[in-house]
Amino acid sequence: MTLYRELAAEVAGMIESGILRPGEKIPSVRNMCKRRKLSQSTVLQAYHELEDRGQIEARPRSGYVVSAYWKDMPREPAMSRSPRAATTVAVADLVFDILDATRNRALVPLGSAFPSPLLFPLPRLAQLLGGVARHLDPWATVTDLPPGSWELRRQIARRYLMAGVQVPVEDIVITSGAMEALNLCLQAVTQPGDIVAVESPAFYGALQALERRGLRALEVPTHPRDGVELDSLERMLRKHDVKACWFMSSFQNPLGGSMPEENRQRLVTLLKARDIPLIEDDVYSELYFGGEPPRPLKAQDRSGLVLHCGSFSKCLAPGYRIGWAAPGRYARQVERLKFTASISTTVAAQEALARYLGEGGYEYHLRRLRQALQTQQNQMLQAIGRHFPTQTRVSRPRGGYFLWLELPAAVDALELNRRAAAQGISIAPGPMFSAKRQFTNCIRLNYGHPWSQQIEDAVAAVGRLAAAM
Amino acid sequence: MTLYRELAAEVAGMIESGILRPGEKIPSVRNMCKRRKLSQSTVLQAYHELEDRGQIEARPRSGYVVSAYWKDMPREPAMSRSPRAATTVAVADLVFDILDATRNRALVPLGSAFPSPLLFPLPRLAQLLGGVARHLDPWATVTDLPPGSWELRRQIARRYLMAGVQVPVEDIVITSGAMEALNLCLQAVTQPGDIVAVESPAFYGALQALERRGLRALEVPTHPRDGVELDSLERMLRKHDVKACWFMSSFQNPLGGSMPEENRQRLVTLLKARDIPLIEDDVYSELYFGGEPPRPLKAQDRSGLVLHCGSFSKCLAPGYRIGWAAPGRYARQVERLKFTASISTTVAAQEALARYLGEGGYEYHLRRLRQALQTQQNQMLQAIGRHFPTQTRVSRPRGGYFLWLELPAAVDALELNRRAAAQGISIAPGPMFSAKRQFTNCIRLNYGHPWSQQIEDAVAAVGRLAAAM
Repeated sequence: MTLYRELAAEVAGMIESGILRPGEKIPSVRNMCKRRKLSQSTVLQAYHELEDRGQIEARPRSGYVVSAYWKDMPREPAMSRSPRAATTVAVADLVFDILDATRNRALVPLGSAFPSPLLFPLPRLAQLLGGVARHLDPWATVTDLPPGSWELRRQIARRYLMAGVQVPVEDIVITSGAMEALNLCLQAVTQPGDIVAVESPAFYGALQALERRGLRALEVPTHPRDGVELDSLERMLRKHDVKACWFMSSFQNPLGGSMPEENRQRLVTLLKARDIPLIEDDVYSELYFGGEPPRPLKAQDRSGLVLHCGSFSKCLAPGYRIGWAAPGRYARQVERLKFTASISTTVAAQEALARYLGEGGYEYHLRRLRQALQTQQNQMLQAIGRHFPTQTRVSRPRGGYFLWLELPAAVDALELNRRAAAQGISIAPGPMFSAKRQFTNCIRLNYGHPWSQQIEDAVAAVGRLAAAM
Repeated sequence: MTLYRELAAEVAGMIESGILRPGEKIPSVRNMCKRRKLSQSTVLQAYHELEDRGQIEARPRSGYVVSAYWKDMPREPAMSRSPRAATTVAVADLVFDILDATRNRALVPLGSAFPSPLLFPLPRLAQLLGGVARHLDPWATVTDLPPGSWELRRQIARRYLMAGVQVPVEDIVITSGAMEALNLCLQAVTQPGDIVAVESPAFYGALQALERRGLRALEVPTHPRDGVELDSLERMLRKHDVKACWFMSSFQNPLGGSMPEENRQRLVTLLKARDIPLIEDDVYSELYFGGEPPRPLKAQDRSGLVLHCGSFSKCLAPGYRIGWAAPGRYARQVERLKFTASISTTVAAQEALARYLGEGGYEYHLRRLRQALQTQQNQMLQAIGRHFPTQTRVSRPRGGYFLWLELPAAVDALELNRRAAAQGISIAPGPMFSAKRQFTNCIRLNYGHPWSQQIEDAVAAVGRLAAAM
């Protein structure tokens, strides 16, 4: 762990254990530098991280204090304990029943998988889309065939480079959203009947993809802050013939955890030694709250075993359906699978995003989006603290737009979902996220919508329903 | 067969057998009415059909004569004879090697699968796309989730109705092009290892889809004019446990054949009696040359066994990647598969096409497009007559944009393809279209590009290469 992370973890521990109380001052930067023999920049970085998490705040003329609302903040959930056998996946019916509800615009979308579309630069994108379409070379329908628009792939390669990852333009395949990319990558590295390791809880889309392809899921214990538990994974790899892993390294859906840098290194080494390909579902990585972007597992990959999948749907252009895969040694295979799956991806949408990325407003948009999501997370955390049973545990992700709640054991999340729906509110109940339908007392809430009285009331209502169970 | 078709077939037979020679008059309409006791409209319909096929032409003051170039027209190919066993499919490498070439814009695209993008109303579509995107309800990203835009599905249902097919709006699922629709339908009705009946020769995309899903292909003899040979099919269904059929009822790729109305009826009855689902790949049906649009097999379907797949990519908006499925009793299943495969389809593209279909210029565009393709077909048929070995047989499709050539047995189409590529010309060699790599002396040529000296020269060059083999 880096020095500043160590310091941040230490101060956070003091806050979470109650040694430091809401409103109380924490040691000044100067003081801390002297006491711990740290540089000013290290201490500042640690404090900024704590500020990003909402645990401390800067007060004019009094330095940093513990955030006022911190007293209301529930504890984080415990790590999942997973069954140790692979499971045939059959989640489709459950998941679809619940998804049908999230499409209903009359419901308050706490169960939705999407952030508010109002957070995105849709007018500027629309302008570009119209302009690009009017001036498009008619032959782009042929030249943008898989692997896709060269200029868009160049822009994506440029962003990889900025994130410290070297991906040749030729190895990027444009897809109709990340979901298609993930499916194609899964197809490239598995045969029906194979075992695939997934997180526990896992993104239900991954479980559905496994189900479609007739694969078995091996659910690996996953920490709500640090992601996949590597000791468990290592044991499981010794016992099972795992053909691939499908993990979300950053802001995992639904837990929100991100793997620490040292775990990322260890995971890639672990898989390389066994020649196991890793599908990295990395659609939330742009939505980080700290100053520093998470580095994808792909950054550690020297052997081409990491199939990295990204998307613009969560961070820039929902509805444009543009995603991509950087599938390493499987690039040509994925390119061919893309062709046989759906020929190509909407040409004007590819070119419009390429233009947007080229003109330079993206960073500004992302900063505002991250800010909005972080504010909304704090608002929802506080509301949960006010309205949910005191034993409730809540994740505290450093990015993305999901909270994971572990409710008292008596709460049946599926029943809670039915009762919430009757009151006009959607939630995402825990069993959606497990091939074994575990997490019966957990729910995922979406804070991707600007805070409003309606959302506050909805959180309060779900809290009351949970308390009554 | 209807009366006018019988008459047309009879006159065509006289032309093809040489009884009527180029430039010679055929009986006047009045004469024919009297002689055959037919109504004037029946005779006119027959003559218009022959005119559409390019076999006769109207001369001012002398009535109809046999077309002048008919003497140069090669004969139609014979019906395919297929192996009677199901085959594991492994065409991917061959097909991709050839497709890579068609993407190369330096090559004359005789092997291309796409018509010229210049034939489409791209400027108007671009206008609509820009306008729609600017005024789009941001929540359309949620409401246009599968099954897709309601307005677009309504417009498609309206067109079905005009073609005499009743499809409820609710049963239409929008997809990222027809290829995705076809894949999802195939997935809905098969399990890996199943046998699927396909035409012989078949669209290579169907073979690739079978290969991806681990299915076995049963190749059914197919007539270059009338499509699937039903007596053979019936025998094969008795012998094999066929789980699904994948047929193109109209302007089959690559042969160009269309099933006569009575065959369509018989096929649907045949499959209904055995409860075998039929995937109807119907992406060329708007490109008919006669006065009368072909009626899809779906029109005969009362039991929901026909999964009809369509697209706007060949007739209106290449590059927009909008297709659809009307999967009958499998509609909900296909909708769910669409969600798990790629979540949704580009929202602005869906809405732009809905607007285009609503404003009424579509019919006018289609008439011009059909006219252009028919003219180009005649031009290419004549060029083939001039430049290819005399034993060459050529299909004479009444729609679409492909010709199927059966060359002298000594010609190796794969070698011809290599030699043509060396001269800057792409072609589509026959073995691409067969799981057993039959049709070694056949090629498919694309006439979807406005005629030019370059294309004339390319046809001449391929003809010379073939003659030299």
